[in-house]
Amino acid sequence: MNYDQIIANTVKKNNSTIVLVVMDGLGDIRSPKFENKTPLEYAKTPNLDKLAAASAVGRCIPILPGITPGSGPGHLSLFGYDPLTCTIGRGVLEAIGLGFEIKPGDIAARCNFASMDENGLISDRRAGRIPTETTVELCNLLKEIQEIDGVEIIIEPGKGHRFVTVFRSKKKELGAFINDTDPFREGKAPLEAKGQNPPSQFLAGIVNKFIKEGHKRLKDKKPANAFLMRGFSAKPKVPSMRDKYLLESAAIASYPMYRGIASLLGMHLLPAPDSIENLFQTYVKYRQKYDFFFIHIKGTDQAGEDGDFESKVSCIEKVDQALPILLEHKPEVLAITGDHSSPCAMRSHSWHPVPVLIHSQFCGVDDVQVFHENACNTGGLGFFESKYLMGLLLSNAKRLDKFGA
Amino acid sequence: MNYDQIIANTVKKNNSTIVLVVMDGLGDIRSPKFENKTPLEYAKTPNLDKLAAASAVGRCIPILPGITPGSGPGHLSLFGYDPLTCTIGRGVLEAIGLGFEIKPGDIAARCNFASMDENGLISDRRAGRIPTETTVELCNLLKEIQEIDGVEIIIEPGKGHRFVTVFRSKKKELGAFINDTDPFREGKAPLEAKGQNPPSQFLAGIVNKFIKEGHKRLKDKKPANAFLMRGFSAKPKVPSMRDKYLLESAAIASYPMYRGIASLLGMHLLPAPDSIENLFQTYVKYRQKYDFFFIHIKGTDQAGEDGDFESKVSCIEKVDQALPILLEHKPEVLAITGDHSSPCAMRSHSWHPVPVLIHSQFCGVDDVQVFHENACNTGGLGFFESKYLMGLLLSNAKRLDKFGA
Repeated sequence: MNYDQIIANTVKKNNSTIVLVVMDGLGDIRSPKFENKTPLEYAKTPNLDKLAAASAVGRCIPILPGITPGSGPGHLSLFGYDPLTCTIGRGVLEAIGLGFEIKPGDIAARCNFASMDENGLISDRRAGRIPTETTVELCNLLKEIQEIDGVEIIIEPGKGHRFVTVFRSKKKELGAFINDTDPFREGKAPLEAKGQNPPSQFLAGIVNKFIKEGHKRLKDKKPANAFLMRGFSAKPKVPSMRDKYLLESAAIASYPMYRGIASLLGMHLLPAPDSIENLFQTYVKYRQKYDFFFIHIKGTDQAGEDGDFESKVSCIEKVDQALPILLEHKPEVLAITGDHSSPCAMRSHSWHPVPVLIHSQFCGVDDVQVFHENACNTGGLGFFESKYLMGLLLSNAKRLDKFGA
Repeated sequence: MNYDQIIANTVKKNNSTIVLVVMDGLGDIRSPKFENKTPLEYAKTPNLDKLAAASAVGRCIPILPGITPGSGPGHLSLFGYDPLTCTIGRGVLEAIGLGFEIKPGDIAARCNFASMDENGLISDRRAGRIPTETTVELCNLLKEIQEIDGVEIIIEPGKGHRFVTVFRSKKKELGAFINDTDPFREGKAPLEAKGQNPPSQFLAGIVNKFIKEGHKRLKDKKPANAFLMRGFSAKPKVPSMRDKYLLESAAIASYPMYRGIASLLGMHLLPAPDSIENLFQTYVKYRQKYDFFFIHIKGTDQAGEDGDFESKVSCIEKVDQALPILLEHKPEVLAITGDHSSPCAMRSHSWHPVPVLIHSQFCGVDDVQVFHENACNTGGLGFFESKYLMGLLLSNAKRLDKFGA
């Protein structure tokens, strides 16, 4: 018996509503650069603090201590999908992040333009980091290769020198057990694609033809006269939120990456307007229709990655100002946290535990009166792996029966 | 190497005594119904607080975050038996709860009286919830079937419409891989028992004959003219406390469920008088004879399940008043905790972490000066799964060697 099986054996339906607000990259660290306060400590958050005082708080460990998650594992964990066993292939994650709808059977690969010398060796794995506009132009050249041996080829340009290739076939099964063609070192030739089982062998043949054909078209486009492919992967088979938790769930998220992950888990995608106020209003509008709402706020992470302390503070304050909209139509369970930390002083994702707050009639209010990292250290939820958050939310919603007699 | 193996490889004997006081369902949550204080916060507990000030405190997570345990998993965890892998079958647990002594080889099933219509379909799975007295009478009818094909049949009436059937054979091996006969829906016929291996197939045949014979005797006893059987199970093969920890252990517990679990783990059952004072005196009397004492106090859970705040407070205060009896003959290690929370505001078991206190010469005294849920949030033990408590107690008793060189 493991955690997922306990949940499966004890979960039940009722009329409660659960709202999970994910402030992306919320957690931060104190730095002398920013008055030795975290953005949450610095921001004026009377509403969040009042809510924290009536909640149980703690700190979520996104994956395990010291591990910095990408957006994929960070969110999977928050939704109770063990990020160590439930992995989304990089190709698929990249496609999702570009807003591309991966269908069952599709195989996606992350690609990047590269520079190749006259001997066919890679001289720059990132083609001098060509700008996005150039990538769009070059992708248009590759898009001319619409199909090889009956397999449809779909090209989706990304940021900088990156793009995604999706292979789709209505007739033949395609496999994803294919090695990266990226040699991961300059001075080496791109590797030949090889499949590890018959459907992958079939696709590997197509991949090699595609690379050959593509390189022909890029011949004169130095520094981007080649491309490398990685992370061949198919849409993962994960149980939906409905199957796993008996929850009709909806996502209010504007960025393709988060809409994509939500969609993979069977969440309904609701309109996601620009302002935080309007995100919360969308919950109010649809609150009778779903059991579970995932509301995603991107600003905190963006500010953290930019090292923009003021912008992170401002985003937090906007959430605080809009909070009464949620509280006026308070769900049975309201949780606020992040998928990981993105400290301004680090300009990147980090491993630091994320402050978390659970508010419900049965949350077990603790002594913590404000909502920030260090206050949450002494909360009634303690430190726990994010993958247990859904269990706590379901319990608070009285949607879990007792385990054992 | 896992935790159990580390313990097995490092455990040793010495002359120390460990006392574990389990206040059943001790943990609670603040509720506006009860002045926003937990019973532990509200109760006057000068002795517990003084002890907490000289102890290390923290919070035990009975199973995993968000999971509400039954009494079985809750206690197994406290004794260091992983509740996810060491499961006691429902039939056996029910029999134990009724004070029935399950022997090796016995197979037990939980049963309930039900109503069956003229077509043999179940019209009420609980026979209109007949009272306990009726169940006792009907069980007397079933007790007439003392034996089928050489297999002894033992009937034990329970509460309400419930009873337990135990199958025992001195000659043939009996198996428990048998499906529930309960169709779990009204309008369906009871299911035939089928075994999944030869000893289970043999018993399934007996079970079907027993049901046929039993239904004959209940024919005119509407609404309870049938019964359904579930949770066929044998006494689990778990190592005793002696084998696992080299501890001679004793239980001072008055309720059959807890005596039963203690007995399963090889604890000696000591007399368990009514008052808390006398429970503690029993320890004093036998303290030279055993290494480990499990003292079970039921009142806190009962009060929580009844939503009776005052009674929970009163039970806690009685423990506090009796505490000097233990402290006068202080064991080397004294721990006080619960097997789970039973918040008065919820009238049920819950998932909330349980306050825990460990007092010993080497416990590592922290700053916490009082013993209640939120004070324990900042204690030196942190939040930890209850299954690690025994390791901590053994360490505090200096009964564990260093792991690795």
